[in-house]
Amino acid sequence: MLSDNISRRENGELLFAGHSAAALAKKYGTPLYLFDEERIRDNCRMYKDAFFTHFGAGSVPYYAGKAAAFKEMYRIMAEEGMGIDAVSVGEIHTALAAGFPAENILFHGDGKTDADIAYALDKKVGRFAVDNPEELEALNREAVKRGIRQKILLRITPGIDPHTYEEVNTGTVDVKFGVPIETGQAAEFVRSALALPGIKLLGYHCHVGSMVFDEDVYERLADVMTGFMAEMRDRFGYTAEELDLGGGYGVRYTENDPPADIPTRFAEVAARLKADLKKAGLPLPRVSMEPGRSIVADAGMTVYTVSTVKHIPNCKNYAIVDGGMTDNPRYCLYGSRYTVLHGTRESEEKDRFDLAGRCCESGDILQRDILLPADTRRGDIVCVCTTGAYNYSMASNYNRLGRPAVVMLTKDGDRIAVRRETSEDLCALDV
Amino acid sequence: MLSDNISRRENGELLFAGHSAAALAKKYGTPLYLFDEERIRDNCRMYKDAFFTHFGAGSVPYYAGKAAAFKEMYRIMAEEGMGIDAVSVGEIHTALAAGFPAENILFHGDGKTDADIAYALDKKVGRFAVDNPEELEALNREAVKRGIRQKILLRITPGIDPHTYEEVNTGTVDVKFGVPIETGQAAEFVRSALALPGIKLLGYHCHVGSMVFDEDVYERLADVMTGFMAEMRDRFGYTAEELDLGGGYGVRYTENDPPADIPTRFAEVAARLKADLKKAGLPLPRVSMEPGRSIVADAGMTVYTVSTVKHIPNCKNYAIVDGGMTDNPRYCLYGSRYTVLHGTRESEEKDRFDLAGRCCESGDILQRDILLPADTRRGDIVCVCTTGAYNYSMASNYNRLGRPAVVMLTKDGDRIAVRRETSEDLCALDV
Repeated sequence: MLSDNISRRENGELLFAGHSAAALAKKYGTPLYLFDEERIRDNCRMYKDAFFTHFGAGSVPYYAGKAAAFKEMYRIMAEEGMGIDAVSVGEIHTALAAGFPAENILFHGDGKTDADIAYALDKKVGRFAVDNPEELEALNREAVKRGIRQKILLRITPGIDPHTYEEVNTGTVDVKFGVPIETGQAAEFVRSALALPGIKLLGYHCHVGSMVFDEDVYERLADVMTGFMAEMRDRFGYTAEELDLGGGYGVRYTENDPPADIPTRFAEVAARLKADLKKAGLPLPRVSMEPGRSIVADAGMTVYTVSTVKHIPNCKNYAIVDGGMTDNPRYCLYGSRYTVLHGTRESEEKDRFDLAGRCCESGDILQRDILLPADTRRGDIVCVCTTGAYNYSMASNYNRLGRPAVVMLTKDGDRIAVRRETSEDLCALDV
Repeated sequence: MLSDNISRRENGELLFAGHSAAALAKKYGTPLYLFDEERIRDNCRMYKDAFFTHFGAGSVPYYAGKAAAFKEMYRIMAEEGMGIDAVSVGEIHTALAAGFPAENILFHGDGKTDADIAYALDKKVGRFAVDNPEELEALNREAVKRGIRQKILLRITPGIDPHTYEEVNTGTVDVKFGVPIETGQAAEFVRSALALPGIKLLGYHCHVGSMVFDEDVYERLADVMTGFMAEMRDRFGYTAEELDLGGGYGVRYTENDPPADIPTRFAEVAARLKADLKKAGLPLPRVSMEPGRSIVADAGMTVYTVSTVKHIPNCKNYAIVDGGMTDNPRYCLYGSRYTVLHGTRESEEKDRFDLAGRCCESGDILQRDILLPADTRRGDIVCVCTTGAYNYSMASNYNRLGRPAVVMLTKDGDRIAVRRETSEDLCALDV
């Protein structure tokens, strides 16, 4: 199986985190998001241990809530002692409502409004990752108004293209985030931050993209950022205390994806960073990263019921389910690959299907060209694996479909974390 | 200007339906969806008049609610005497909650569950567009259980590819909807429907795709469907009373799109259909279509505030706004083109920008390579035109962002149709 929290009983029934997907479908209805709570906690601990081992107690990973943000998730993150990377007032509000400590929140985003800034300051959010000079200016103004010095990281664009992971030596990386080093704009950004009375600069944030599998991308990032830290020390006498390497080790969506050994990979990055720092005569900063996908992706599965199967002669087969691009838009958006499994049987005789959604849109496809039992039919349960990240959080009400419930699974049982959205809920904001 | 409900005051202020976009932004906040109510009503009347003129009083267009579904929209549709094409229990519930008559609802969709079918029958929805044999069987079972005969149309795949508008003479059109004619499956579908005690077959539905500009696609569709009607009469002695030609005249998103003269185009289709029917010796059926986009698209505009502007040397400029793929995912999904206008000034000196959203995702782009005043900056108002269709209805809470308010504009004033989603709303379903 793709992941060791997926298995099959001898009778063919698919198990996720030890629970029957079909039984959960019967209990809660479909479509249904499942989360393996132990897997979430294990993934958190794996990151925390790696940071502790290499950088000591102060260095903590920030869970990137945009992967999956709801109160129960933030409760788990609080219990696991994770930090949180939040990107909106909505995420901060949800985390605080779940009892997550404001001090451990890092507020991200390239489009913070004055109202967002005021809200986060009033809630005493621990750190801002400041994306651009306009934000820095607005944040300083609001902080001064409140008589405080807000702790921040500056978001620096390291000159490694987030799409290709190639270094771009003109500094002209085409990305909407941060301020580039090579144009000299990042140094000006630091100079400004150091001069502002409402700002306490702790260090730098950088990010090279998501789904990183490339062997040495974080090592090259360590080189670039250490160089920048040394340059800022030499120019401004400022030594950064914190360095955030951004998000994203990749996860396995299909058998074709390489298995990720994050502790080993992270150890390599840590060694390189320490060597770089030593060479530059810089002290070890508080180091952080922002894993989201790799915390929750393999802790998730989505369960659907088949509505109809169509065999189009000389063309293809469609299996149409009771969800679709509304609960998982990632195939429509990115052509993302997923592994699809039948919920109750593994047949000898298989056939190829496009797994389509129920939206009135011919492009509503969850996955093309997958293998399912040839006799798959209305009423069957079908499961899409590794949907813990960017499924619930990207879901919409297109076609006025309510979003599925979210159910947390543990060894002891199952419980609702987010209840199913009803037709009444859909009209709650309507006048 | 792109559409005659968009204009500019001499001081540069952009007007939509005669209202200042900037003033509305100030009053309601941004991002903000605006709807020109008179334009919606005019578009409805244009279709209704065309149907009445060519096919008489019984022939009515069904508004395809998936383009924009909320209570206020359904109230307008009820007042205008439109039918409704609904694709889910959520859409039916919303329409009924707005006082829309169930009899005038046509229930569509390729993935209706038993629960959906039971709900629609209990609410006495006028017609089902039955997509496939499994649905037909389930519907018959539920109807018989209730002692009724449910009026239906059968969804027939006419053999014209919805992506290319080409006829595909093997019948193997790659689409998840309906039952194809050329494989003989459609005839079997009709035979089944005629034999079922819980089913009253009224006629046929067909659909060739959205954004139709092609000169004669509906004429070819009329030929195909008339041929099928004649064949069914000859084989089963059954003459269809209704024919639904599906959805979709195109709209103008940019100056490069042709202006659509729907009445003229529809007159051509009507003439062809009448000639075809006469030749086949068939009586004139009740004719319908399902316009969605062409009813609401040009009645919509979205208003944003600029958060920051980035000039990346030797690369490009970004203008980042306080919305994005959350309120309009169509550029991310389809690369859809839109016209973007500055809200308060039309400058002599313009520059090229990518209009980016505020989501923590480098692909969060609303439109690439647009012209805006070179001095566009934080706090400026920017408007995206023709967003009435598939923006509000496809919106998500990605990044835990609340969805914008929807404001209806009339000659007399402005009023909220859907209120802005708050952080509390976002947590309403969380345990």
